[in-house]
Amino acid sequence: MEKSVFKFTIAPQYVDFTSRASVSGLLDIILHAAGQDAYRRGFGIDVLAEKNYGWVLSRICVEVDYLPKEYTEFTLYTWIGGYNRLASTRNFELVDAEGNLFARAVSQWCMLDFATRMPVDMNTLAKVHEGTIVDAPSPCAAPRRIGALEGEPVLVHKVAYSDIDFNRHMNTMRYIDLMSDSMPIEQLEALNSFRLDLNFVKEARYGDILKLYSETCDNTYTFEFKNDAAESLCRAIIEIK
Amino acid sequence: MEKSVFKFTIAPQYVDFTSRASVSGLLDIILHAAGQDAYRRGFGIDVLAEKNYGWVLSRICVEVDYLPKEYTEFTLYTWIGGYNRLASTRNFELVDAEGNLFARAVSQWCMLDFATRMPVDMNTLAKVHEGTIVDAPSPCAAPRRIGALEGEPVLVHKVAYSDIDFNRHMNTMRYIDLMSDSMPIEQLEALNSFRLDLNFVKEARYGDILKLYSETCDNTYTFEFKNDAAESLCRAIIEIK
Repeated sequence: MEKSVFKFTIAPQYVDFTSRASVSGLLDIILHAAGQDAYRRGFGIDVLAEKNYGWVLSRICVEVDYLPKEYTEFTLYTWIGGYNRLASTRNFELVDAEGNLFARAVSQWCMLDFATRMPVDMNTLAKVHEGTIVDAPSPCAAPRRIGALEGEPVLVHKVAYSDIDFNRHMNTMRYIDLMSDSMPIEQLEALNSFRLDLNFVKEARYGDILKLYSETCDNTYTFEFKNDAAESLCRAIIEIK
Repeated sequence: MEKSVFKFTIAPQYVDFTSRASVSGLLDIILHAAGQDAYRRGFGIDVLAEKNYGWVLSRICVEVDYLPKEYTEFTLYTWIGGYNRLASTRNFELVDAEGNLFARAVSQWCMLDFATRMPVDMNTLAKVHEGTIVDAPSPCAAPRRIGALEGEPVLVHKVAYSDIDFNRHMNTMRYIDLMSDSMPIEQLEALNSFRLDLNFVKEARYGDILKLYSETCDNTYTFEFKNDAAESLCRAIIEIK
């Protein structure tokens, strides 16, 4: 089994005011490739929906050497590296026109039963990953587990129409936008090499009040989103190199 | 001179939770086509930048019969219908695969001198529109002038990193997102045929505090964004049919 190959262009809607891909734009492309590859290989959300199951992103990490400019073309390789009862691991390699591997990502996905809101044992749908595992190592260290934050929120946001996806849940890219919005703009203007780790704990729904907690230590930003009931929703670490 | 032709697909980043193009997504595509066409015809922001001039969108209206679904392909026609000293008029027609004209737009653009922040007489850069006027009527009534609103703001927003374009100004699509966010979600879920008019009065910059004022009468929503100095920034009317 070979890695899947996608060609992408950094379209205008993926760039920020520096005319380079934003962190959320790059993640949008990566997650889009994941969805497309699952669809093509026969285990997309269309197939899972027949059993009222769906894929849920549990953790992801992205390591970036530089942020490509608007209209840059690149090649994205993605593959399932393995799975256990609770999660499958999907890897990504982003290679520029000069052949440089400029970004790497590792993601972990659970299969959720929408009826019970519980994870499904991957083996109960045994054919899902049959013949699709590519025997290649992950291109960077697996996404790490991130702890809780305390203190006062740096930002309060009510989940609105423009934040939600077809499940009416807060969109992953909007979490990253809100974290970015809380960082010094000079830091984002100069951003090049970094690693982002994301843990998704619980969905935020339309109308939920989000509170963003943040801690900065040297060039490492730690974030946590909680809802009004103080439940953790999403945690992240951005380590700028 | 012929109308310019572009082929587009409703990509995932242009849709909302209904899996149909959002109002801001459709406008993003329309404005992207305007920029591309100006570039190809030799009067894009690249050429104007040599004189420290730039195009500024002053008004636009969009009439939509239905919002196309994700992955729908359509054809966009655009052309300059005419110009006077202060503004040029660019028209748009969006035609679906069945040949139905499902959306129309008319936009008015000023040429701004970035050094003086004043509009430039179009005739001073006479060659800009030479030989590019298409003798075809606008596909709908010109964008109308919208009055001021009073009262209490329905939303306060600080212009953040994820809102700004390469000029560090609030992005047009984010204005529309924030207006949409203030509307009842049931209204957006059922949205099909509507007309949107937009007037741009003054730019909002990174860090500015925006206040959104809103008035609803039957199926007509009127909006105005003002800054902290109570200056008008952007006005809009969405008339749902």
